[in-house]
Amino acid sequence: MFSKILIANRGEVAIRIIRACKEMGIQTVAVYSLADKEALHVALADQSVCIGEASTSDSYLNAERIISAAIITKAQAIHPGYGFMSESPRFAELCKKNGIDFIGPSPEVISLMGDKDQARQMMKKAGVPVIPGTDILKNPGEAAAAAKRIGYPVLIKARSGGGGKGIRIVTGEEELENAFLTASHEAQEAFGDGAVYLEKQINPAKHIEIQLLADETGNIVCLAERECSIQRNNQKLIEESPSPAVDGALRARLTDAAIKAARAAGYCNAGTIEFLLDTDNSFYFMEMNVRLQVEHGITEQITGIDIVKWQIRIAAGVPLDFTQKDVVIEGNAIECRINASSVGRVTFLHVPGGPRVRFDSALFTGYAVPPFYDSLLGKLIVHAKTREEAIRKMHAALCELVIDGVPNNIDEQISILSDKRFVKGDYNTNFIKERGDD
Amino acid sequence: MFSKILIANRGEVAIRIIRACKEMGIQTVAVYSLADKEALHVALADQSVCIGEASTSDSYLNAERIISAAIITKAQAIHPGYGFMSESPRFAELCKKNGIDFIGPSPEVISLMGDKDQARQMMKKAGVPVIPGTDILKNPGEAAAAAKRIGYPVLIKARSGGGGKGIRIVTGEEELENAFLTASHEAQEAFGDGAVYLEKQINPAKHIEIQLLADETGNIVCLAERECSIQRNNQKLIEESPSPAVDGALRARLTDAAIKAARAAGYCNAGTIEFLLDTDNSFYFMEMNVRLQVEHGITEQITGIDIVKWQIRIAAGVPLDFTQKDVVIEGNAIECRINASSVGRVTFLHVPGGPRVRFDSALFTGYAVPPFYDSLLGKLIVHAKTREEAIRKMHAALCELVIDGVPNNIDEQISILSDKRFVKGDYNTNFIKERGDD
Repeated sequence: MFSKILIANRGEVAIRIIRACKEMGIQTVAVYSLADKEALHVALADQSVCIGEASTSDSYLNAERIISAAIITKAQAIHPGYGFMSESPRFAELCKKNGIDFIGPSPEVISLMGDKDQARQMMKKAGVPVIPGTDILKNPGEAAAAAKRIGYPVLIKARSGGGGKGIRIVTGEEELENAFLTASHEAQEAFGDGAVYLEKQINPAKHIEIQLLADETGNIVCLAERECSIQRNNQKLIEESPSPAVDGALRARLTDAAIKAARAAGYCNAGTIEFLLDTDNSFYFMEMNVRLQVEHGITEQITGIDIVKWQIRIAAGVPLDFTQKDVVIEGNAIECRINASSVGRVTFLHVPGGPRVRFDSALFTGYAVPPFYDSLLGKLIVHAKTREEAIRKMHAALCELVIDGVPNNIDEQISILSDKRFVKGDYNTNFIKERGDD
Repeated sequence: MFSKILIANRGEVAIRIIRACKEMGIQTVAVYSLADKEALHVALADQSVCIGEASTSDSYLNAERIISAAIITKAQAIHPGYGFMSESPRFAELCKKNGIDFIGPSPEVISLMGDKDQARQMMKKAGVPVIPGTDILKNPGEAAAAAKRIGYPVLIKARSGGGGKGIRIVTGEEELENAFLTASHEAQEAFGDGAVYLEKQINPAKHIEIQLLADETGNIVCLAERECSIQRNNQKLIEESPSPAVDGALRARLTDAAIKAARAAGYCNAGTIEFLLDTDNSFYFMEMNVRLQVEHGITEQITGIDIVKWQIRIAAGVPLDFTQKDVVIEGNAIECRINASSVGRVTFLHVPGGPRVRFDSALFTGYAVPPFYDSLLGKLIVHAKTREEAIRKMHAALCELVIDGVPNNIDEQISILSDKRFVKGDYNTNFIKERGDD
């Protein structure tokens, strides 16, 4: 096992990883930008290294400085968390070159899954259902012919797209040429790659993802699904597991597809396969996230499996000590993301507690939220015997949570929790748009 | 179900009960002394009533004022928590007379279990093993004859004793008369009842207790044992469940005895049977606690059953919806009691978190611990797949917990957690004394 790990991240996920390391008896090294010198992850780690100015390109996205910090502190492995370096094949490659274990899959797999077209082709070959669509298209004419075959509405998607960029919805042929050209242009500008392809738009649909763990010996175990359809602009707001829309039979099919996908990719470490679930229970591969996800905690609650500890063990070559049939889902877990709506200093913090209430956060009374990074303040997670009880527990916990000094979305979360459609579990990715909160 | 409950307590247990009520959609009424007007339980309850001065006899032990507060606020039930009114048959009786449901057993059962001699006789009759001993003794001569028969060392115990008062260890006949007279005198002074009896001293022994839930229809379900041998002056410091000394066969025997005991008493609501476990795995009834216990949380963690919610449901006439065979023990839970060693104001609070870490407390940054009540600051509870992992998790959580401004026992708890005998699970009620910390 590693004796020292560097955490190439900040905020709640850095804390989460430090806690896992402490429980495993592993020394921790925090890295931080000048804006984060008072941050909790710096205080909690055994060692810390300042890697630069506030700007992410000078700090948390600066691969060379992070690697240098690992070398100086003799860290044997780097955990990238989510975001930042977690999906950078170059960073994973740099770790390798410097004899440092990257806690995640190989640079090749990261690279492969980062190319949406290539990933799609691979999944198709592996027998994983993919959204009906095309290969890379040469011109609007090719796109029009394909759209006619597949049926409108369709999406024009950039091969190298992400974060909602390089994507257009096309409801009829008259919009196609313009959509093709603007999507391609936008992708060329943002990612240096104007290649686009076409996919059928599945709408309404649910965003369902399967968490899995895969070790070096080829064991792959799925930890059930997460329902992530409550989103605004592709940013998840609430996640739950299990999904109210997934029964045992559908879960078995999703699990089967996820294992096929991971096996085809030669995947190792924790990963997530995102699917779109259609109203007729057919589902389609969207993408594979080759890292820890923000919402991993709800899976931990219902399975009792510590995903971060397993990421570390797997990277150290430890095989999984349980199989698919050992995974038992117990009760229902929900996560509400608590986001800042502007910067501010926490003047008073009160965190709810009691049985099966968890708040993963880097906040403390006196903490000033810096303007440079993402808006996540914390993740409120509850777990109960039933979905109904979990909703009531979340409602009570949200009402108890106090983060004075930093404007946030607690009230909105309470409102969503009370929405009849949410309570019934009858929602899809249009939920937030249809509520008209936007 | 009740629509409004008054909580006749303060501190972390009041918060615990308020949270359960909020999750159940029940309105809450807090009562508070003048010393507690800034307390968290007052802030979290839907309503609050000041019941008097700081002194407990003027507030939390003043039955009439608490009942008045319930009547004024139209609370239908009172949850007494632990301590204060929780074991007062008179208070339970007063509730009844005023048409208020007392969340606990009947006044008769509270009264019965408060008389240690009567409880002992009843258990003996019911076939529950009791410590070899005598009925009430008339004089030192009777005591000497009985001690000879039973064998030294013996304990002289007051019928109405409690909190370590009215109890003497006697290692040989030469100490007997003096012990008899001083124990009786002390009990007469403290409890107005000088009656004493004699018991064999079981030492070394482990303190093992069985948590149970019993409903109005006669269902009794045991929720495994708690190991509570880490004590100083009969005050528990660390509890864990399951006990490292209890295997399935012994658990079955303890469960069987606990059910017999509860059935004999006609018990209803949550209760705990305390046993002394001898080195040869024989065990003896000590007493029944007719209330919620401080350490109930570890049982909740390993069983997934919310004991406070069930107390409320049972008091409202709801039968248990599970049976003994539905109770599955999952992993190991440990609780460390975080106590204040003197008063003070919390200048900074940082609570550990992450998977399966729970801190039940009434603290917040700025809170001044008043000098009038007990020293419990909070209960740090962890849960993990194995005992070894739970110990490591507790160690990490203790190291992370920060309560600046109030001197406390966090360091001592870390030291106990690291003690080889604790780690091996090889300890008994002499543990703290033998460590020489006293």
